[in-house]
Formats: sequence, structure tokens, C-alpha cells
Amino acid sequence: MAVTFACLARRSMALSRPHGGRHMSDIDNGDFQERIQANFARQAALHTIGAELTRVQRAMVEIELPFDVKLTQQHGILHAGIISAALDSACGFAAYSVIDPDASVLTIEFKVNLLSPGRGDRFLFRGEITKPGTNIIVGDGRGYAIGDGPAKLIASMTSTMMIIRGREGITG
Amino acid sequence: MAVTFACLARRSMALSRPHGGRHMSDIDNGDFQERIQANFARQAALHTIGAELTRVQRAMVEIELPFDVKLTQQHGILHAGIISAALDSACGFAAYSVIDPDASVLTIEFKVNLLSPGRGDRFLFRGEITKPGTNIIVGDGRGYAIGDGPAKLIASMTSTMMIIRGREGITG
Amino acid sequence: MAVTFACLARRSMALSRPHGGRHMSDIDNGDFQERIQANFARQAALHTIGAELTRVQRAMVEIELPFDVKLTQQHGILHAGIISAALDSACGFAAYSVIDPDASVLTIEFKVNLLSPGRGDRFLFRGEITKPGTNIIVGDGRGYAIGDGPAKLIASMTSTMMIIRGREGITG
Amino acid sequence: MAVTFACLARRSMALSRPHGGRHMSDIDNGDFQERIQANFARQAALHTIGAELTRVQRAMVEIELPFDVKLTQQHGILHAGIISAALDSACGFAAYSVIDPDASVLTIEFKVNLLSPGRGDRFLFRGEITKPGTNIIVGDGRGYAIGDGPAKLIASMTSTMMIIRGREGITG
Repeated sequence: MAVTFACLARRSMALSRPHGGRHMSDIDNGDFQERIQANFARQAALHTIGAELTRVQRAMVEIELPFDVKLTQQHGILHAGIISAALDSACGFAAYSVIDPDASVLTIEFKVNLLSPGRGDRFLFRGEITKPGTNIIVGDGRGYAIGDGPAKLIASMTSTMMIIRGREGITG
Repeated sequence: MAVTFACLARRSMALSRPHGGRHMSDIDNGDFQERIQANFARQAALHTIGAELTRVQRAMVEIELPFDVKLTQQHGILHAGIISAALDSACGFAAYSVIDPDASVLTIEFKVNLLSPGRGDRFLFRGEITKPGTNIIVGDGRGYAIGDGPAKLIASMTSTMMIIRGREGITG
Repeated sequence: MAVTFACLARRSMALSRPHGGRHMSDIDNGDFQERIQANFARQAALHTIGAELTRVQRAMVEIELPFDVKLTQQHGILHAGIISAALDSACGFAAYSVIDPDASVLTIEFKVNLLSPGRGDRFLFRGEITKPGTNIIVGDGRGYAIGDGPAKLIASMTSTMMIIRGREGITG
Repeated sequence: MAVTFACLARRSMALSRPHGGRHMSDIDNGDFQERIQANFARQAALHTIGAELTRVQRAMVEIELPFDVKLTQQHGILHAGIISAALDSACGFAAYSVIDPDASVLTIEFKVNLLSPGRGDRFLFRGEITKPGTNIIVGDGRGYAIGDGPAKLIASMTSTMMIIRGREGITG
């Protein structure tokens, strides 16, 4: 085997020529950062939980969340549904950065693994695009608790999204 | 609402004698309804989203949620993270009904499929236990939108949970 | 709450009017049974593992598998990959029964829960359609071990599939 | 193949101090490579599909598979169940490298995303440990098709496994 596989989801994709897909570097979808910020501003649920959009790059978005007791479950740790909301949003916004400006994204399904209890002062959720298809986009996300000491991996997500074009009432 | 819910999960289990598991009818865990109500009362995140615990039976719990614009994503429909929070909780409470009174439950992972946009006046989320193991419990949940006309299936979940016994700070 | 929810995935769907979907009773896709049998005959991997197509109905397909030591993992039980192959196929064939005759189906993703060790003389895998969308179909499957005594539930799957129309080289 | 694989999983873990977990560098489980090879030799299903164990490191295992028409589905591409078998095994063997010598591993559940059709002369499946817990281990896997040109990412998996200690008949 002479092939050298590379680190990070991003690089794996540089290696790969998906059937029917395209390289992310081929995509010119204009000012995706502005569109993602406008989209974030319209997501009432994210404001309800106190989420902040802290980093937007092509195929990678980060959302941060200060700890708040109103977001906890019975053990005083971050509720799995809140973790899901933040990771799903990070993956979804990352998808917006690789689609046409007038298209939109709907999550079809996701899986979340809760790896460690969500304890910390603050949480960071990163979503990255693993496969930018023409109809289906797959993203992977990771959530970290931030407090004293190094960040702690608390959750991972794989999310499958569908690109929506021209469906009334469901635009970006 | 009387008899007709959930023949599927329950019947499948009547067929099945899980290796190392037990029949749910063998389980005497006392007043699980009281414990689940107390547990619900401690889940701050569920109060934040306006969830109500409306039905508690052995191996089956229902949570309802009135529509609120503060729970929506950019298309004005219920955010997938809110759906996850409600379904995860319904499955988790259903698990509490089949474990020992002094044990607790932690979600390890779940998968959510978003089957139709979450539009409606009100939502109902039902969690049922598919496999009550000695260490691992698997539940399945379904979410419905309720408005004019018949209820509409909007989401499904499969959730894997771990039974926790005697771990300080993580009790029921 | 006056709504009465019904048993079985099938009935839940009768209740539900998915956004952009259709009732399965509206679907006339001709002789789906013949097409599914022909499709099964072309699935080399299913012959390799000894699978048999034993039941084909609209939105529900069953596949059976005799135990064979060549299908086991290190503990002598059915390998999770073999269980996945059978459940994925049962869900996939069930999807063929609800699509147009000239369309095809590709699995996008699935999740499998291994509920009990796969021990038995014979195994039955049932796939059912939970949501027959216009582009995305979601199925749920269950696997059972059959030996002495009642059938034992050993696995469950949720599968997300995409309908493919007119893509050369990937037809039915 | 030298240095560059899998910065992601490994680095994320270097950042992370899982609650109740341990650093993988703290683990001394002796000659895990021999045990994994012996374990592989006992997996009949892997021989049936022609899998080869080509790389074993702590927390990372690779399995390769030559293309064979007997492993295909109706479109002539690798069957999703075969991909699952190989990825599940790669993750499972990777888990054996981070547990005590007398413990064993059982897969509880996994999710597979099929990212591109499985076409190629040969396939490589890599499993890596994302979270080495005391009871639950989570792994992530990726599958690649290898032919002319660069390797193509065809599938990803997240797998949840349980550590089994001293359960008769289910030893490593």
C-alpha cells in the first residue's frame, strides 16, 4: 500500500473524488459568511439556549455556549438535547458554506454519542463537512467542555443533510 | 386514550427472551411514577423548552410540548435539537420505569430521523423500551405534530442508555 | 388529548400526511413482487451469506438466513456485519415496493442496535417502511433468532434511503 | 505509509480528559497485536468475505479487502453489509488494543454512512478509538476504495462497544 492517508476530515476529502460530487475548492458560493450569520440570527432556538456563532470557515463552523443551569438535565450536566441542537446547527451552517447561495439545507437525520458528562464553564461545538455531495451532505461534529485545564471531548455527531432548491417557504 | 398504543414494541418483546435480560413483567421497581415525576421536575432544560410529562406507564412515557416560536430554526419549524431533547427524555424516563429504584440512567448515544417538518400547535413524544437489559437499555421514540386533522409523524429516535448504580453525584 | 395513536409503523403512517409525501395506498407501482425477486437474484452478497427472500408485501419484506459457522465472529455468534447486510436488504427491498417501477433505491446510512447475541438455528429479518417520502425513504428493521422456544429479538435497524431516478448504471 | 494518519481522533483525545476514563498512554495491555491477530483468525465471517488484517497499532487497526463480485449488491458495488462488517471489525480490533488482556469487547450499536459507491480494486477500512472509557468504548471508522488515482472515501462509521469481563463463553 503506497497510499498515504491524511489527517483531518478536510484532508481526507482533498484525497477523494466522490462519485457525482465535487471538490470543495471548486465551489464559489459567494459571501457564505454573511448568509450564515443572517441564518443564525433567524434561529430562535439557538438564542433561547444562548448559543454564539464564533467561527465560520468554508466547510467548518464553530458555535459556543456558556454553561447555564437552565440547560441541564437531572444530574446537573448539559442536556443531550442541547448538545444535539448545538452540534446539528454547527454541521448545518458548515453545509451552507458549500452549497449554492440560493439553496438551503434540511437535516434528514443525525446520531450523537455522549462521550463524557457535559460539565464546564463553556462549551464549543465544531461542525465539519465530510462529504459535500450534489444532493446529500454529510457532516461530522465534536463538542468540547471548556473550563480549567484542557478542553474535554464530550460528544460527537454524524449528520446527514439534504440540499433543498426552490421549495417555497423553506429558503435559506 | 385507552388501549391501542404501541403494539409493535411491546409485542416484539413478548416474543423475545433476551440473553441475560429479563421480562419487564418480572421487574418490581416500586413507585416508578413518583420517581419519574420527581426526576422530570429536576430537568431544567425541559422546563426551558416548556415540556410537560403527560403519561407514565411501565416501559412507556409521553412528553408533550406546545409550539413556541422560541423553539424554531430558520424555517420556522421545531428545531431538531428540541425534538431530540424531548425524545431523549421520553426514552430516558421510560428506562427509569424498568430499573431498580436506586439506579439511574445515562444516555450513551441516540439517532434521530426527522421525517416531516415540525409544524403544529402541539407535539407529542413517546418513548418505549425495546430491550431492558441488565446494563444496557435500548429505547425507541416517535414524535408527532398535532394540529387540525390527524397527528403527523415527524421524527423517530433509537436511544442506547446505560444503567448507573452507585456512582456519586449521578443518582436518579 | 383525544388523539388515539395506533400500533405498528404501518398504522402510524396511515395517520400521517407527510409534507411533500403521499399515502402508500396511493402508490401503484405494478408488480413490485416480481421486481424485488429479480433484484434479490442479482445481489451476489446475499447469496454468499445464504439469505432467502421469504415474504414480500407492500412496505414490508422478510429475509431469512440459516445459521452457518462461516457467518460468525470470534464468540461464535452471527457477525454484526451479516446482521447489517440482511437488515439493510430487507429495508431496501421494502422501499422498492413503494417507489415507481423505473426508480431505484440507494442506502444513504443506517444504524444497527445489537440487542442480544445472534445465536439460533435460523434468523428472520423484517424491514418495514416508516416514511415513504418523495426523495427520501426511511425504513425500520428487526432481526430475530429462531430456535427452540419463542423467537428472540437480536437487532434493530433504522435505515435512510434515497430514491434514484434515471441515473445510468444504477437502475433497479 | 509513515506518519500522517489520523491526527484528528488522536489529537482530539490528547486534548481530552474523559470523566472516569484514562489516557490511552496509561494503558499497558501487553502484546495486544498477538491477541488481535489470534482474534482475527477466529472470525469466520471475515474469512468468508476475504478480509485481511494489514495494520495493528494502539487504538488504530486497518483491514483490507480485495474486490470480489460475490460481495456486491444489485448495482455491482460493494454491499453495505460487507462495508459494515469490515468497519465494525476494524473498530472492534482497535478497541481490543486499549483494554485489559483478559477482557473482551462486544459491539452495542453502530451507524454507517455510505458516502460514495464502493467501486475499486481494493478497499481499506480503518478503525480508531475516539473514547476509551472504563465500560464503554467509542470508535470511528472510515472506508476507502483504492484503484487508479487517489483513494476515495466511501463510508464512515461510529461504533459503540461494551467491555466484557469474565462472562463465560464470550472471551477475547
